[in-house]
Amino acid sequence: MLGECLENVRKLVPLVHNITNYVTVNDVANVLLACGGSPIMSDEPEDVEDITTICGGLNINIGTLNLSSIKGMFLAGKRANELDHKVLLDPVGAGASALRTNTAIRLLDEIKFTAIRGNISEIRTLAFGSGTTRGVDADVADSVTEDILDQAVSFVKSFAKETGSIIAVTGAIDLVSDDVRCYVIRNGRKEMGRITGTGCQLSGMMTAFLVANPDDLLKGAAASVCTMGLAGEIGWDNMRPEDGNSTYRNRIIDAIYNMDKEILDKGARYEVR
Amino acid sequence: MLGECLENVRKLVPLVHNITNYVTVNDVANVLLACGGSPIMSDEPEDVEDITTICGGLNINIGTLNLSSIKGMFLAGKRANELDHKVLLDPVGAGASALRTNTAIRLLDEIKFTAIRGNISEIRTLAFGSGTTRGVDADVADSVTEDILDQAVSFVKSFAKETGSIIAVTGAIDLVSDDVRCYVIRNGRKEMGRITGTGCQLSGMMTAFLVANPDDLLKGAAASVCTMGLAGEIGWDNMRPEDGNSTYRNRIIDAIYNMDKEILDKGARYEVR
Amino acid sequence: MLGECLENVRKLVPLVHNITNYVTVNDVANVLLACGGSPIMSDEPEDVEDITTICGGLNINIGTLNLSSIKGMFLAGKRANELDHKVLLDPVGAGASALRTNTAIRLLDEIKFTAIRGNISEIRTLAFGSGTTRGVDADVADSVTEDILDQAVSFVKSFAKETGSIIAVTGAIDLVSDDVRCYVIRNGRKEMGRITGTGCQLSGMMTAFLVANPDDLLKGAAASVCTMGLAGEIGWDNMRPEDGNSTYRNRIIDAIYNMDKEILDKGARYEVR
Repeated sequence: MLGECLENVRKLVPLVHNITNYVTVNDVANVLLACGGSPIMSDEPEDVEDITTICGGLNINIGTLNLSSIKGMFLAGKRANELDHKVLLDPVGAGASALRTNTAIRLLDEIKFTAIRGNISEIRTLAFGSGTTRGVDADVADSVTEDILDQAVSFVKSFAKETGSIIAVTGAIDLVSDDVRCYVIRNGRKEMGRITGTGCQLSGMMTAFLVANPDDLLKGAAASVCTMGLAGEIGWDNMRPEDGNSTYRNRIIDAIYNMDKEILDKGARYEVR
Repeated sequence: MLGECLENVRKLVPLVHNITNYVTVNDVANVLLACGGSPIMSDEPEDVEDITTICGGLNINIGTLNLSSIKGMFLAGKRANELDHKVLLDPVGAGASALRTNTAIRLLDEIKFTAIRGNISEIRTLAFGSGTTRGVDADVADSVTEDILDQAVSFVKSFAKETGSIIAVTGAIDLVSDDVRCYVIRNGRKEMGRITGTGCQLSGMMTAFLVANPDDLLKGAAASVCTMGLAGEIGWDNMRPEDGNSTYRNRIIDAIYNMDKEILDKGARYEVR
Repeated sequence: MLGECLENVRKLVPLVHNITNYVTVNDVANVLLACGGSPIMSDEPEDVEDITTICGGLNINIGTLNLSSIKGMFLAGKRANELDHKVLLDPVGAGASALRTNTAIRLLDEIKFTAIRGNISEIRTLAFGSGTTRGVDADVADSVTEDILDQAVSFVKSFAKETGSIIAVTGAIDLVSDDVRCYVIRNGRKEMGRITGTGCQLSGMMTAFLVANPDDLLKGAAASVCTMGLAGEIGWDNMRPEDGNSTYRNRIIDAIYNMDKEILDKGARYEVR
């Protein structure tokens, strides 16, 4: 059951180094604290190697990248690799600009990622060097639906094989896969797309789950996705008529804070293919 | 009626590129999502031209500007002009420092803005190269009140004529003007001044309204100002005794999320001079 | 009584220049507004001297420092010293990286700080150039508890004497000291540690209290610590079962917004040693 993966985060309190965008960084920090981890942020090249050394995991998110923080990403990623830390890539906006696409692909070339999490459009860009990106949301035409599920599962498995990373594609249906098994997850609500940064938040949280679940990384990653999606469902149930996306953001993080093994085990909706 | 301008945003889902300060950026993103737009943030000079190309509008906000992001503002602004995108300037803190004043004035010289939104002190700085700024709030002595309304309306009309931009001066009374017509708007509450960033949020939202209402830009801009002010009123009505400015922030964004044509048409309080 | 220190902030509305990290900056701004101050943020070296000149206080927080913002810290700090402004240092993560430790120590060498606020681990790093930092939270083994209180009081007094600054060490028990008197404060709740940035928020607020209480700086600093801790208690009392750390963040800021002289005088729990 996935609930024990959350318990492991609560027990270990993994310290996660985040090089992440300034849009959603506060929510990333609060989600890490909500799930039981501990966040630290640093992107200055002269600072990141020391910071990542004292952490258990590194979350690299390329939203609002700049030339200095890109240097920081490479330095931190290489150091984290040397120390055998868990490292996650969130290729925000890959496909939307040459700098983002090229940076994501170079990161993939030079750093070994434990996991890569993005929407289908971003992950396709990494896999095929093409695709279109509509802002940071998945291209609707390319979303993972029941109709194309088999094809999508086979794509993520093969990209996981190619990269040696866990691939997490999140959207209406979430896929979390290594080259053998793929968790198909049906938690979450479409209204989560009206809040900025639920993807970034998940990337931070997933890094904590990877650190705390070294014996079954795929299960740990899937547990983080179910935690976020289920929190989206619980948070929505707690909404009042006058509430909107700003309060929903708070309610989702609150639901993660209050989640425990039992709630997650009962609410997680997934199959393994 | 202004309500249809909001409906147009919901229908078009305009993608807005924001080069904005890191203080209020998360709220800007959530307000854009609340009103029906879609936000993307990027300030790195090597990234901004690609990003602005895929958008419909560009929101340039000079709060927490730095030498790199200033370069980004010029590059993005010029590209957006070439593509005939809607471009908005929020001259946060113009008058408070030489760098801010000079950057705002240079932007005005080199880039064609569809609209400029600021408090009276900032707009006066752009117009006269002088004025004082108290933080990012309007100088109280220079606020737009009923007493000096005629004079203020005539000032914004003449600055709109000079710049060829829609001028939006927000404060106790909001003025949104081109060189002919001026919307005088009396929505909003003074308590909105106790939240950081309602001005920045409005600038992001106004950009989305401009993109979605190309046939009557002035009306679109005025509709965004009424939306923000009315949300401030509705949000305040939803406050409980223990609530303060942090919850008020959420309630305002929530009210935008829940606003529709009917609510806006009924609640908008304005006259055209 | 400490309540009058809060009243002084409300009366003066001190403008505070913040060079602070991008993780918690929005909350810092909203807390400053909640307590009655007015925030402005700027870290660009070419901007900071002008900005700090129009303010009454400067809050330097080294979380997410970068080479450019470090330059800004020194320029702003020196200008603020020339103008005899109140200047506060929050050495976030000192001890966690060489850059942070060295920057904090260099700042201490070159700038005269009215107050220094951090957790025990960060303050120990400044005092002894050593110590360990777990993220930005105090090392549990080194926390200030009743058992080691005498020793801790004597440490902060002697570090206050050495630096000529007010030293504020916050944690389970808070100490606010000059070289003669030490406020031992027992407000607050442990759950505040599950929100990112309550320390950063306090640093911003403390700067406003210093500006507004020039005749008794130590009392002003202590009043800000009691305000934050008491807000943590009041905010918690307003929590509902489904609420978590994200809503708690809002409730704390709300409680500061609604606090007045009477509430603070009644709720402040401290002794002077």
